[in-house]
This record gives sequence, C-alpha cells and structure tokens, in this order.
Amino acid sequence: MKNLEALENQKAPSPETVPAFRYEPRASDREHIRELVAATGHFSPAEFDIAVELVEERLAKGPASGYEFVFLDDGDALIAYACYGEIPCTVGSYDLYWIAVDPARQGQGLGRLVMREVERLVHERGGRRLYADTSGSAQYAATRSFYERFGFTEEARLRDFYAVGDDKVVFGKAV
Amino acid sequence: MKNLEALENQKAPSPETVPAFRYEPRASDREHIRELVAATGHFSPAEFDIAVELVEERLAKGPASGYEFVFLDDGDALIAYACYGEIPCTVGSYDLYWIAVDPARQGQGLGRLVMREVERLVHERGGRRLYADTSGSAQYAATRSFYERFGFTEEARLRDFYAVGDDKVVFGKAV
Repeated sequence: MKNLEALENQKAPSPETVPAFRYEPRASDREHIRELVAATGHFSPAEFDIAVELVEERLAKGPASGYEFVFLDDGDALIAYACYGEIPCTVGSYDLYWIAVDPARQGQGLGRLVMREVERLVHERGGRRLYADTSGSAQYAATRSFYERFGFTEEARLRDFYAVGDDKVVFGKAV
Repeated sequence: MKNLEALENQKAPSPETVPAFRYEPRASDREHIRELVAATGHFSPAEFDIAVELVEERLAKGPASGYEFVFLDDGDALIAYACYGEIPCTVGSYDLYWIAVDPARQGQGLGRLVMREVERLVHERGGRRLYADTSGSAQYAATRSFYERFGFTEEARLRDFYAVGDDKVVFGKAV
C-alpha cells in the first residue's frame, strides 16, 4: 500500500489552533476517510476502498483488527488521520498504513502532528521499528521526501512491484 | 509472514501417486491447515492462527477475500497446500502467503508440485511477479534454499524486522 502525506513547507501550528487527537473510529469515519483520501488527488478508487476497509475492520473487530488510528477533527470535519498497527508475527515492528491531510488544511503542520503522535504511541507500546511503503514513481516524490524529513530511510526497493516501472520503496525508522 | 516448505531431496512423484489438486476450501480445512502447519514444527501458535485466518477469510468472503488456495488431499487427509493472492493495489504482483507439506509426506516432490501449480495459476491470471517473505534466521535456511531452487532471488532484506536479529527476506521471481 502506498502512503501519502503531500504537504510541503510545514510550519508549527499556533497553539490556539491545535485540535485534540481522537483514537476511536466512528461509523462516520468510513465516509470521511473516503472523502479525505479522494480529496488528496493522489489515490485510485481501489486505494480509497482499502483505506475504508481498514476502518471498517477496526469498527467490526476493535483492537483485534490490528489497526490503530489517530484522527484530527475540526468540528464535524475530519482534517487529518493516520492508520498504523503492529505487523503480525513480529516483535515490535509497526506499519504506517496511511497518513493523509485534507488538502485545504495542508501547510499547517498537521501531518507532522499526526506523525509524531503515531511515533509516540508506537514507542509507548514497545514498538522498535516503524515502516512505511510507498511508490518509487515521480508522482510520489513528495511523499518520499516527507518520510525522509521524519528520519525514515529507504530500506528496500522491489522493482516493478506496483506495476512495470513502478517500484515499491520500503522506508523504515527506529522509534 | 514467513513461508515454509522444509522438504529436501525432492524427487518427482511416480505418476500413479499424483493426487488431484483442489482449489475450493472446505470448512474442515481450518482444522486440517492448523494441524499441518503445526506438524511442520517450524511455526508458532500465533502463526497457526494466521494460517487459519486466511482460509476463514476465504470461506467467509469467497474470491473477494483475495486469498487463493491449492490443496492436495490423500483421502480425507490434507497433505500439502499453498495460499497465495494478488497483492492489493498492484498490477500483477502476487504473494505466496503459505506453502506447507505434511512432514510424513515430505521428500515425495509434493512441494514442487504445489509450487508449480501456483506459478501456473498466477501466470494464467496475468500475474508478472510472485513474492515470498521469510526469515533470515538460521532456522529458515532450508526455506530460503527451497525458494532459491525454484528460481526466487533475494530482492530485499529488512534488518531486525521480525525481532532484533531476525531479518525479513523478500524473495521474488518472474512468473
């Protein structure tokens, strides 16, 4: 799966505008996640479906789903979120499945805020490593830069994984 | 996830003993897969659970689960199986999630038979690449040799992925 957080030129948000994190998904997140992921303009409908499936799994199975969330709301609107979870059959390796920010709210440091919260939670749960998969294509250059700014390094590259000429790049970092 | 097929010294089975492939899981496969995977002696109970979950997903959701199977039976006994599927959001990349042979039937070429059938089916569905993840630890040396004999090559290695000192090795081959 590809992760995306396309914002550039992040600034620290001013304290009075920092929203509170929410960790429990609601039924309405299914539609809100679909809209947010679609709004970024970087994903295909098949990818929207996968983003929604993860929150549906969590709603149906709770923590046993293996999917954890960090949400940022502004009133009734979802403005940023991340989905992560411990990788089955590993001791302390976590996958960052999705991270996305509403394009209308990019440039306000929300991606950084959500990423830091994911890293804090993974560390708190005894996690050692956080991984994020993305594409090696030109379209995802901003995503790769985003991970690199957060101290992720390219650990592996699978040639032609997503399609011919579209490699999978696995980023990882110690948390 | 780690894949395992521990047999060595494979020979071609004599024609009169070649069983027919079965592709549709039955409810009884849940228990048979658990027993077969446990019998190999190479997996943890957490890994048994994952092997069983994949067949449960298939029984519940059918082809929409994304999990495909190749079974080899001897009467009512399951003697070998593989689980594979197209990787979501890829065009033609498949994952070989599990391949296992009953230890009492190893050395008869059943692993080779099942692997060849998976490759044939992936190719028939337009697949380009088949991947198999395994551990880089000493315990999995026979598994890595098995993949290498089938033309898989090591495409990536993620250090300390499964645990500290236990790397993930990603094997891949064109099909």
